[in-house]
Amino acid sequence: MHDKSFPTDRRTLLKGAAAGAMLLTPGAALAKAGDREAIRKAAEAGYQDSVRRIQDWIKLPSIAAENLNMQEGADYMMRLARDAGFQHVEKVPTAGHPGVFATLDAGAKRWMGIYFMYDVKQFDPKEWSSPPLEARIVDKEGWGKAIMGRGAVNQKGPEGAFLAALHAFKAAGRKLPVNLVLVAEGEEEIGSPHFTQVVRRPDVLAALKKCEGVVIPTGWQSRDGSTDVNLGAKGVVELELVASGEKWGRGPAKDIHSSQKAIVDSPAWRLVAALQTLVSPDGNTPMIDGFFDNVRPLSARERQLIAANAAATNPEDVKRALGIKAFIGDEPWLKTQERLASQPTVNIEGLVSGYTGPGGKTILPGRAVAKIDMRLVPNQTRDEIVGKLRAHLDKRGFQDVEVNVSGGYDPTETAENSRIIRAQQAVYTRSGVEHTLYPRLAGSWPGFVFTSAPVSLPAGQFGLGHGSGAHAPDEYYVIESSNPKVQGLVGATMSFVDFLYEMASIK
Amino acid sequence: MHDKSFPTDRRTLLKGAAAGAMLLTPGAALAKAGDREAIRKAAEAGYQDSVRRIQDWIKLPSIAAENLNMQEGADYMMRLARDAGFQHVEKVPTAGHPGVFATLDAGAKRWMGIYFMYDVKQFDPKEWSSPPLEARIVDKEGWGKAIMGRGAVNQKGPEGAFLAALHAFKAAGRKLPVNLVLVAEGEEEIGSPHFTQVVRRPDVLAALKKCEGVVIPTGWQSRDGSTDVNLGAKGVVELELVASGEKWGRGPAKDIHSSQKAIVDSPAWRLVAALQTLVSPDGNTPMIDGFFDNVRPLSARERQLIAANAAATNPEDVKRALGIKAFIGDEPWLKTQERLASQPTVNIEGLVSGYTGPGGKTILPGRAVAKIDMRLVPNQTRDEIVGKLRAHLDKRGFQDVEVNVSGGYDPTETAENSRIIRAQQAVYTRSGVEHTLYPRLAGSWPGFVFTSAPVSLPAGQFGLGHGSGAHAPDEYYVIESSNPKVQGLVGATMSFVDFLYEMASIK
Repeated sequence: MHDKSFPTDRRTLLKGAAAGAMLLTPGAALAKAGDREAIRKAAEAGYQDSVRRIQDWIKLPSIAAENLNMQEGADYMMRLARDAGFQHVEKVPTAGHPGVFATLDAGAKRWMGIYFMYDVKQFDPKEWSSPPLEARIVDKEGWGKAIMGRGAVNQKGPEGAFLAALHAFKAAGRKLPVNLVLVAEGEEEIGSPHFTQVVRRPDVLAALKKCEGVVIPTGWQSRDGSTDVNLGAKGVVELELVASGEKWGRGPAKDIHSSQKAIVDSPAWRLVAALQTLVSPDGNTPMIDGFFDNVRPLSARERQLIAANAAATNPEDVKRALGIKAFIGDEPWLKTQERLASQPTVNIEGLVSGYTGPGGKTILPGRAVAKIDMRLVPNQTRDEIVGKLRAHLDKRGFQDVEVNVSGGYDPTETAENSRIIRAQQAVYTRSGVEHTLYPRLAGSWPGFVFTSAPVSLPAGQFGLGHGSGAHAPDEYYVIESSNPKVQGLVGATMSFVDFLYEMASIK
Repeated sequence: MHDKSFPTDRRTLLKGAAAGAMLLTPGAALAKAGDREAIRKAAEAGYQDSVRRIQDWIKLPSIAAENLNMQEGADYMMRLARDAGFQHVEKVPTAGHPGVFATLDAGAKRWMGIYFMYDVKQFDPKEWSSPPLEARIVDKEGWGKAIMGRGAVNQKGPEGAFLAALHAFKAAGRKLPVNLVLVAEGEEEIGSPHFTQVVRRPDVLAALKKCEGVVIPTGWQSRDGSTDVNLGAKGVVELELVASGEKWGRGPAKDIHSSQKAIVDSPAWRLVAALQTLVSPDGNTPMIDGFFDNVRPLSARERQLIAANAAATNPEDVKRALGIKAFIGDEPWLKTQERLASQPTVNIEGLVSGYTGPGGKTILPGRAVAKIDMRLVPNQTRDEIVGKLRAHLDKRGFQDVEVNVSGGYDPTETAENSRIIRAQQAVYTRSGVEHTLYPRLAGSWPGFVFTSAPVSLPAGQFGLGHGSGAHAPDEYYVIESSNPKVQGLVGATMSFVDFLYEMASIK
């Protein structure tokens, strides 16, 4: 679900190939010069260990949707935290799969929160050019050496780079400049249905409340080295709409022969009838009653940021990257970019009914399913929208059409003047990394867990480095960059080192 | 596609459990008494060989949709024909998979056509209680010993019983009372797309033109021993409706991340928009422009036959057998039965788009497919309806939505006073088998190939015996009946012997 970089990273889409290159200068040193140098040497010395740590982690896929390796994944996450120096490491049971809570008290003045996910997206090995659990090191044309495997960039690679930073501090004998609270979950890819149970547990909440903010490690550098600082993300709801003879009381309970269509109702046609009420005829505007009631229009500052983005990017590059020939409504590029940030959506992820193999099969299916995701913008909430969808269907006589929510969360917003946002900008700037301040990711991540009450902290993404293919085949994370503008694993590690120093000292 | 007995045989549905039992008396002997007795002894002596012939055939599944064993299946069909006494046996190439043409000239006065299919429906072994290609002999509660396997009843069992009749004639040293023309195809289950190329080849056509009619061997006896004589069948068209970014020029060419829905059109929503124009909001009445133009209303005689059927059957039994709680519109039973025979349909066999596995996946699919079948009644034709569907979509701006027809054929009608219909009735009557004259199967079979020009012959189904589960798991064909009202393999074989004698002598 935290899936910014699929199928091409948004940064590429926004900035396009034409964006200007900038010199990469050595990262800042708010650390004493000697400290940073010692840590960098330790990071370099630990490179092989860091690579192997990511590879080994990829070899243990935890997939909540398939209930695969969930306890094992949580245990592994705990071991990784302990090895990196967290003194207190604890499994946090939930009504679903367990989370992990860990603290590293370095005796520093400030605390910072770190969010990890230990789960990965489902995968089909047949679609991969390299076995997705072998985490092989491959040559990625134009990028350099990369680890290829499920979870490589989403999120084990960047998380591994963050862990490598902690190992480097240890190996160099340097104290962390900030104390850390780690909260991790194994259900990110199913919409984080129980993660609030982790962060709201009184002791976890108390620990988080001491923090300046929460950061998820990422690696989203474009070819030109640039990256983003995001002030928020859309929320999301994932659900299945299910029409069935069983619930409807009409149509068959199971698939029957299609000749009976002459006298038997069809749940598949019922699903189609219900679906088409949800959007405008062109499929682009949600028509669920009251859907837009709480949508807050873009602010002047948001429009300003979007305009700057739009001016710096080329729509043709974005079309090429997405494999499309046209944007919705053939609108001007600025309008399209405003849509991306501001438009809530109702999307069909998948349709499944009856016979789905090659050719045909003369059946009247007893059940039809539409997999739907809805992206939400402030001030919509997940609960509000799920309730409105239910009411919308009920009002039209579709009481029998099930709305089975599998996950989701509210939109996220973080203030531009928060320390974690300013620290990101400062590190990027001093590293010579061009970075765009962007109002809202069109994708989603469970930042609302942190930004909404009772935690109420700023939350965002940070990290140099590069990977791509989240949720897709051939997912990868660069460990040895052949592009001087893009950091490999050691550079990514050092970006976290610099960020921790920055968080310690920023006003 | 010739799928009368899935998921429960139509006979059961029509007659219900309450239908009265009748005495089974020995089959008629238009044959000299001694001939019939000798043939019966030969059929009994050949029982094990006949069982093995069906089992061996099941072990070689030909599936056109999967291009599985098609040449092998045609070769095997030819061997079976040769072994049964056909003197001329020939493979008939088509633009698709080959057909088989064979003749058996016994020096008789009349000729009769026999239609065989050598292909079977796809299957999933996981769903079967006995491996579908092992053709094991199982005890079928209430029926007796049966061969269980893909193709057992649809159509290798009944076809095997017919072949057993020819072997019995041979073994008894008796001449066939009629000469035979066998035409077989391997694409029945994909809608017989090339079978007209077989029957219209000049030499095949000339041979068929000599025939009284064409019969497909079946085995549809109900528990009470009764069966049907059908005067026709609906036609069918199977097709895929495909919406894709590629053809549309909008939306993605491949699946992309669902966050892009804010700015990218959705082929899945486009498919939904196109689909919902095809039927009334309740999904029960086709709304394709001009769909009903050529529908011939039921004749007085057809209404009479349906009324007799409706009176003899119990709607509650039919609901139970179908696993439904209500028929369309909760109409009176007679009306429902008229619908079954007279209503053309537009049915969704399957929906496939994007992510179809467990849980969700945040993608915007590049392609969406609805698998559709349409059942046609006289005087609709396949070509007419495909053309009207295309025009209907075009008129509404869906020129990009593909209509990929995979198979289908026109409705079939055969005159009540034809020799093959009267011979069926005569054999059943003299065998004490209650039989319903039914105007039109709601299912389909490619009888139009024979009933329409240029062949223009009566065509129908015939056979005693019982099997069920066509297109479903655990398909079976009874070889040793524990029900005195239902024939096993020898009885089925003898029904074909009697039918051949009847065809030789009927006025």
